[in-house]
Amino acid sequence: MKLLKEKIMSEGLVLNDAILKVDSFLNHQIDPELMMEIGKEFHRRFSGCGITKIFTIESSGIACALPAGLCMHVPVVFARKQKSALMSSEAYSTKVYSFTKKVTSDVTVLKKFLPAGEKILIIDDFLANGEAALGLANIVQQAGSEVVGIGIVIEKSFQPGRQRLIDAGFRVESLARVQAFKDGKVIFAE
Amino acid sequence: MKLLKEKIMSEGLVLNDAILKVDSFLNHQIDPELMMEIGKEFHRRFSGCGITKIFTIESSGIACALPAGLCMHVPVVFARKQKSALMSSEAYSTKVYSFTKKVTSDVTVLKKFLPAGEKILIIDDFLANGEAALGLANIVQQAGSEVVGIGIVIEKSFQPGRQRLIDAGFRVESLARVQAFKDGKVIFAE
Repeated sequence: MKLLKEKIMSEGLVLNDAILKVDSFLNHQIDPELMMEIGKEFHRRFSGCGITKIFTIESSGIACALPAGLCMHVPVVFARKQKSALMSSEAYSTKVYSFTKKVTSDVTVLKKFLPAGEKILIIDDFLANGEAALGLANIVQQAGSEVVGIGIVIEKSFQPGRQRLIDAGFRVESLARVQAFKDGKVIFAE
Repeated sequence: MKLLKEKIMSEGLVLNDAILKVDSFLNHQIDPELMMEIGKEFHRRFSGCGITKIFTIESSGIACALPAGLCMHVPVVFARKQKSALMSSEAYSTKVYSFTKKVTSDVTVLKKFLPAGEKILIIDDFLANGEAALGLANIVQQAGSEVVGIGIVIEKSFQPGRQRLIDAGFRVESLARVQAFKDGKVIFAE
């Protein structure tokens, strides 16, 4: 997605050989027009798939998923990261390890918002090791619903997440694929 | 806002005399079309105010603020709730007490996304005791920017938040004002 790659090149900050900061338009400050274009692009890529619901994870995932839900006319459900006080009879839950933050989160979602038989598009801002996406997919499968695809805004293609998701049988669509960081610059895969 | 009130009446769950759950369209599952109408309504109410940036707080605030940013063509900045590892030279921070969750959060935002001289609209999903809105307003004032107004999706008018914000000199626009809960039903103020 050209507009997104241009934004990453102009505003993304390469902190080291693994971390790209995009907090001027995605993770802290949000560019609403860019998010709308991202939503349209997810809609275009997954058109005809019969998606009935979008599933994401707080907080940054919400801004990436909401415009897609608007374009596709489907609800957006976001999983929460903190340990929930809910009974396991009420909520699905899985553990997700963040390599960036070096913490394990309990990711939970109320069962009533993820019934069986749905066709789910998972959306997240970043794909690196694939922990979050695999955790969300695990919850969808616990619910008895189908993961139609996984939509990622920025994929770090030099990390194993994409391959892990493909090996698990999922369709992955990433709007910007970063192959490497070189001299503080972003090199895209395509 | 008629559409919002209808949604609250049809899907809102009154848990006790103080708690209204709207997690089927706002706090956990999100209705994107409703959020877009909410964005348009904030735009209408604050048109001509010269707003340059919207300021909200994760997570649910993001879904309420992003469509408004789209309508107003301004960026949306969201404060984070967890304690930041950032230096105080880099970030503004304030403590916000949640009466619902009975915890105090460190609310932080990077200074570079909240420079001086901006005209800020604060948006949040709920107004009860006003702690979150006052905390965000405090940060805007630390930054040397102006709080043009405070836009709230659901106000619990029987709690002191609205009056505290007005006493502090802020303009408050709430899209649904709840006067009371009676026999499990919501009574609106207007």
